[in-house]
Amino acid sequence: MTDWGLIDPGAADSAGTDDDAVLAAMVEVERGLLRAWGSVLGEPLDAAAAALDAASLDRAALQRGVARDGVPVVALVPALQAQLSAAGFVTAPLHLGATSQDIVDSTLMLVARDALHAARRFLVEDGRRLSELAQLERHSPRIARSLARQAEASTLGVLAAGWLDGVASAVAAIDAVAFPVQFGGAVGTGTAADAAAPRPDGSDAVRAELASLLGLADPDRSWHTERTPVLAVASAAAAVVSVLGRIAGDATFLSREEIGEVRLAGGGGSSAMAHKRNPVDAVAITAAATEAPGLVQVIAAAAMAGDERSAGRWHAEWASQRRLVRLARSAASSSARLLAGLEFDRERAAELLEHAGAAGERPSRDVLVAASDRIVDRAVARFARLADQEPHA
Amino acid sequence: MTDWGLIDPGAADSAGTDDDAVLAAMVEVERGLLRAWGSVLGEPLDAAAAALDAASLDRAALQRGVARDGVPVVALVPALQAQLSAAGFVTAPLHLGATSQDIVDSTLMLVARDALHAARRFLVEDGRRLSELAQLERHSPRIARSLARQAEASTLGVLAAGWLDGVASAVAAIDAVAFPVQFGGAVGTGTAADAAAPRPDGSDAVRAELASLLGLADPDRSWHTERTPVLAVASAAAAVVSVLGRIAGDATFLSREEIGEVRLAGGGGSSAMAHKRNPVDAVAITAAATEAPGLVQVIAAAAMAGDERSAGRWHAEWASQRRLVRLARSAASSSARLLAGLEFDRERAAELLEHAGAAGERPSRDVLVAASDRIVDRAVARFARLADQEPHA
Amino acid sequence: MTDWGLIDPGAADSAGTDDDAVLAAMVEVERGLLRAWGSVLGEPLDAAAAALDAASLDRAALQRGVARDGVPVVALVPALQAQLSAAGFVTAPLHLGATSQDIVDSTLMLVARDALHAARRFLVEDGRRLSELAQLERHSPRIARSLARQAEASTLGVLAAGWLDGVASAVAAIDAVAFPVQFGGAVGTGTAADAAAPRPDGSDAVRAELASLLGLADPDRSWHTERTPVLAVASAAAAVVSVLGRIAGDATFLSREEIGEVRLAGGGGSSAMAHKRNPVDAVAITAAATEAPGLVQVIAAAAMAGDERSAGRWHAEWASQRRLVRLARSAASSSARLLAGLEFDRERAAELLEHAGAAGERPSRDVLVAASDRIVDRAVARFARLADQEPHA
Amino acid sequence: MTDWGLIDPGAADSAGTDDDAVLAAMVEVERGLLRAWGSVLGEPLDAAAAALDAASLDRAALQRGVARDGVPVVALVPALQAQLSAAGFVTAPLHLGATSQDIVDSTLMLVARDALHAARRFLVEDGRRLSELAQLERHSPRIARSLARQAEASTLGVLAAGWLDGVASAVAAIDAVAFPVQFGGAVGTGTAADAAAPRPDGSDAVRAELASLLGLADPDRSWHTERTPVLAVASAAAAVVSVLGRIAGDATFLSREEIGEVRLAGGGGSSAMAHKRNPVDAVAITAAATEAPGLVQVIAAAAMAGDERSAGRWHAEWASQRRLVRLARSAASSSARLLAGLEFDRERAAELLEHAGAAGERPSRDVLVAASDRIVDRAVARFARLADQEPHA
Repeated sequence: MTDWGLIDPGAADSAGTDDDAVLAAMVEVERGLLRAWGSVLGEPLDAAAAALDAASLDRAALQRGVARDGVPVVALVPALQAQLSAAGFVTAPLHLGATSQDIVDSTLMLVARDALHAARRFLVEDGRRLSELAQLERHSPRIARSLARQAEASTLGVLAAGWLDGVASAVAAIDAVAFPVQFGGAVGTGTAADAAAPRPDGSDAVRAELASLLGLADPDRSWHTERTPVLAVASAAAAVVSVLGRIAGDATFLSREEIGEVRLAGGGGSSAMAHKRNPVDAVAITAAATEAPGLVQVIAAAAMAGDERSAGRWHAEWASQRRLVRLARSAASSSARLLAGLEFDRERAAELLEHAGAAGERPSRDVLVAASDRIVDRAVARFARLADQEPHA
Repeated sequence: MTDWGLIDPGAADSAGTDDDAVLAAMVEVERGLLRAWGSVLGEPLDAAAAALDAASLDRAALQRGVARDGVPVVALVPALQAQLSAAGFVTAPLHLGATSQDIVDSTLMLVARDALHAARRFLVEDGRRLSELAQLERHSPRIARSLARQAEASTLGVLAAGWLDGVASAVAAIDAVAFPVQFGGAVGTGTAADAAAPRPDGSDAVRAELASLLGLADPDRSWHTERTPVLAVASAAAAVVSVLGRIAGDATFLSREEIGEVRLAGGGGSSAMAHKRNPVDAVAITAAATEAPGLVQVIAAAAMAGDERSAGRWHAEWASQRRLVRLARSAASSSARLLAGLEFDRERAAELLEHAGAAGERPSRDVLVAASDRIVDRAVARFARLADQEPHA
Repeated sequence: MTDWGLIDPGAADSAGTDDDAVLAAMVEVERGLLRAWGSVLGEPLDAAAAALDAASLDRAALQRGVARDGVPVVALVPALQAQLSAAGFVTAPLHLGATSQDIVDSTLMLVARDALHAARRFLVEDGRRLSELAQLERHSPRIARSLARQAEASTLGVLAAGWLDGVASAVAAIDAVAFPVQFGGAVGTGTAADAAAPRPDGSDAVRAELASLLGLADPDRSWHTERTPVLAVASAAAAVVSVLGRIAGDATFLSREEIGEVRLAGGGGSSAMAHKRNPVDAVAITAAATEAPGLVQVIAAAAMAGDERSAGRWHAEWASQRRLVRLARSAASSSARLLAGLEFDRERAAELLEHAGAAGERPSRDVLVAASDRIVDRAVARFARLADQEPHA
Repeated sequence: MTDWGLIDPGAADSAGTDDDAVLAAMVEVERGLLRAWGSVLGEPLDAAAAALDAASLDRAALQRGVARDGVPVVALVPALQAQLSAAGFVTAPLHLGATSQDIVDSTLMLVARDALHAARRFLVEDGRRLSELAQLERHSPRIARSLARQAEASTLGVLAAGWLDGVASAVAAIDAVAFPVQFGGAVGTGTAADAAAPRPDGSDAVRAELASLLGLADPDRSWHTERTPVLAVASAAAAVVSVLGRIAGDATFLSREEIGEVRLAGGGGSSAMAHKRNPVDAVAITAAATEAPGLVQVIAAAAMAGDERSAGRWHAEWASQRRLVRLARSAASSSARLLAGLEFDRERAAELLEHAGAAGERPSRDVLVAASDRIVDRAVARFARLADQEPHA
């Protein structure tokens, strides 16, 4: 089975989330674990760790392993052991004290962190562009619409500021996520690590060191069946995609030929109509925003874990969590292109307002300008404050 | 149309979320708005505000209004105006500068806040009970299970500590939610309030005062179409319900006759089998946890708002948001009963471990006891720290 | 807890789905069961059945029962027994051989059947109106749009025919649903009924008779944990709501002031803007269509039942299944009003086409007229054929 | 971006659904369209059609095309044209009268049909195995459980018959699906095909011929924005997965060491515990059943299409529809292995019943045996009847 993006408009914007990237992260986790043990055992294991290599692993063997064991780690560990042996590190304590879920959970947190932080960078681009547009058009009147009807005058600056508010909130949502490492051992008690370490709280020491090496948070506990960390990732991804979906929807509508308040650059081709320029980035974002809510649901359902490791619900998280952060990343990437090429048509906005009749007669110009100034300045300042802070992990 | 809980096992635990409570909150918002204007206009309006009364409103007229206008506020405002007139406050600036969405959004935030804070109180009860159980049973061995198979020895204390971790995370999830007031006027610019106030930023002043009076957060902006605040409420409710769903699922399984590690008090009757004692609280929680993910999906889909007020997506939030916080509240209430009546059977746990053979042979007793002590103490301390902090709003 | 529709725009169109209606259906099922036993036992029980009365039942007692037992039937049965005793039918075999799930499942099937059949009647109204509009406007050219861009010429008739296709499919979806009765006894084997009857297959005889009396299908088995019948109801409801959601979305867009191809009658008021006429019916339908997918998800998740009766998943179906058929019914009711008051603006459509430039240059008038004729005739004929057939049950 | 199944336990059972298979189906559709035109134009085009070859297409170019156009077809058509030209068929009417959506919708219907029909074959295997088990164990008593409590005696035969009922319903759900071809042209009117054909209803003729060549249904209309056909595919897939999820859940529970009514063959390994044999097939099915409901939700949300082609909602269907039928296929494949290796432990079932006390005291042996016989025979007969009929398309 190989999916290479044929039917995924966001595939080109999904860097760092595909199976090779996940495998590389998985090996990074095992490598980090080896180095963490080196530190705890007071025995240098960096050279052994450096012998682990994702690229040369036999993918077909891993595929057979997933089919046989339901999880890739059981086949991965001997393959990595063989790499260690080949490099002369026969006794290196690979995977010591770990269970498959430790590796998979930590791996998916690495992938989620990188994808959401990549999304954050695009969101910051979005925010800068929208800050610029909001300030530029703070005094450009337009007709605002509610319930799909012309309602009252506003400005293009307020429109951009409203989008900017969403982008700022999405940045804040990402920054609120802790991406914790997982290291609980067979049943979450960490006893295998405790027993193998030269100190009674060996599992705590290894987990803390592993978290530090991977740049993940140390949760100070295991969360094999306490899945709120995964729910937090999913909620942040949903916030990103929803916020961008709203912007894409507005931009799609406002750039329709009959409206024309917004102009979009570029555009994709059509196999049936040579004249068409389709709003491809807005479409890809809308598709992501239509898909994401269902995936959040999967994560929320899977959070109702059982025993000391779920018999299926945990496995249900993998594809959905990866897809969610992939969608957040690709939608953010699309949004940066969309907004870079988006322009307001001030004259057309004024013209539509003029034709709006009673709907557009209020408020007075002075009140509107003052309100628009305050709203724009505030949105720009809020975004700048949130964009400048450091993400959580 | 009247639903009074016939087919809702959580209905009795849903106080503060039904339509009368929503209506009372709606009137509280209009009352708060009147008082906020009193403050901004420097004109005492508390007596007028006190004349507004939810209980005496004509519910049939409001039902007709919802059917006609798609929102209850259009019919509510003249009904409240009539109350003011009857009390001699003919010119009181009722609903001044507000749009229907300001009232509905603020109202649902009040309802959500109260429901989630009620849930929090039950969660704190849960946490205390679990802290007690975890400490009591920290040295009671049992067989842990992964993928529905016996895996390795653990303790009943670790089991309780794992549930406690979830409860603590649910408390933290509630405490992270800001419940913002909404006051944006017709199209989110607040210009009607600006124009009516004796100062140019009248809408800001009224919003800040209204937030303070209602005990909601002042978001310093309007969020008519920036729905991340609603998504945050939904995510917190989902965290509560998922966490409790996991505990209920474990308790249901462990209290099966064939297992017996857990004993539950009470139990509901059966219409077909007189001997049965059904685990009603666990069942109600599981039902809530099965239902909630779909509702989160609705909120995430609705967050893709449009224009300056969505033509339908906003309306889709109402029932789902209310139901979500209701489920969080009722599941938390059920969980407090469930855990108050839950007891571990130490002897049965030991017996099952003994029969587990190879699965139960490790770790050594010493290592397990030390690990259990650390895990229990840490979970108890984390919960205590989170439970003692003040919720956000 | 009482919800009377304050925050539900479809409440006024939800007849037959509220708790009183559910209770009435529940009593109808118990009444039917008594009569079915009368037939199987060869003992007239119609007079006893007639003594059962939903209206006079003590709702507060039922509410307490739901809270205590997690299901209303345990409290309902003695209340009905008291009615029988009071009427002198002390020994009538009330609830004989039944379990709570038999009553609840059969009840919710009755409610679903009535709600979906009411929806069907509105859909047939829709279809007639659309057939009329499609035929009337079969030669009225307009610009069709794809990916939110003007694409190529079509006709208003084709637009109406496309909506009509959806309505016809929704009718077909309803007609494909079997609404089966449930009568499996404590664990689905029907043995209590077998033992009580004068023939070994007593449960089969009672079930067949009960189905016939209630107008439900006889599934010839019990389906306590085989939930595809509920999934079928949910899928049909989702089809209805999605199809209408599409029409509502198109009508909302096409009736925007800037477009104007469609005019809608009536419209709801605004609490902030006196001039506004909001497209209330379209909004209510869109809200329903935004909410329904999440509820379908709940039913699909709950379908993964367990044991001989699920400990929570079954309970999760109740609110969601009822809400789904309620939304289908209310959305269909709204759609009948929407379409009755919907008119095409032929001149405006022609004008927009004219301004469409290259996008509107093809096809030739002759080819378009011929295609439109074929498409309209076919859609009208398909609808007529589907509308005339008898629904399944 | 390449996903090769690293984190998908069902990947090995997903044949026919990956991107190469989708591409092959896409070319099969274009090939069929060419041949259909050959038939309508009375001009032999089979040799030209045979020149089209999926395997040799440049995947990187298609990936770039998807990113640029949001749909793979725009880049595919010139690549296929180049194949025709190279083979000397310069003027062959490739893609004539078609739009991208015609190709993608028809392609995904081919993929869905093949995946669901493959699932059907595994379901028939399941049904045969369950028929055998049900008949073999029709007189083997066990304790049935409701609400996670021991309830009343039943038989292992009834248990197997209940699972068999689900399998039969899943087969029926697949057989009810029409897999229609799509051929509507740019805006669903088919006028380009009409104009190019030697007869006025050219698009109808081509569509009918295309349907016949591909083995899809001729819907006699276009359904670009009438998405009930996709919803029908999703509902069938959800039925398959839910039904199997229930069986997997029961089998997982009943094969726990503490229960032991069921024994499962094989089992996957653990990276932490050498003694463990994890129920990999049941786990993979449970994961699929946890994931599928969220995907159904996406399809239902996307069904609320707009204009003459949705700007994003249509695109949201692709990944979700493919994933749904993939999950149905892989879960069915897993279930065939699960059930082939599943055995009941008659003695253990009897022992558990004996220990059940009051719960197991009824019904009498005679009544139970008679009921079990009837239930088993009926389930076996129903399955045989449904399995023997021809699927819809």
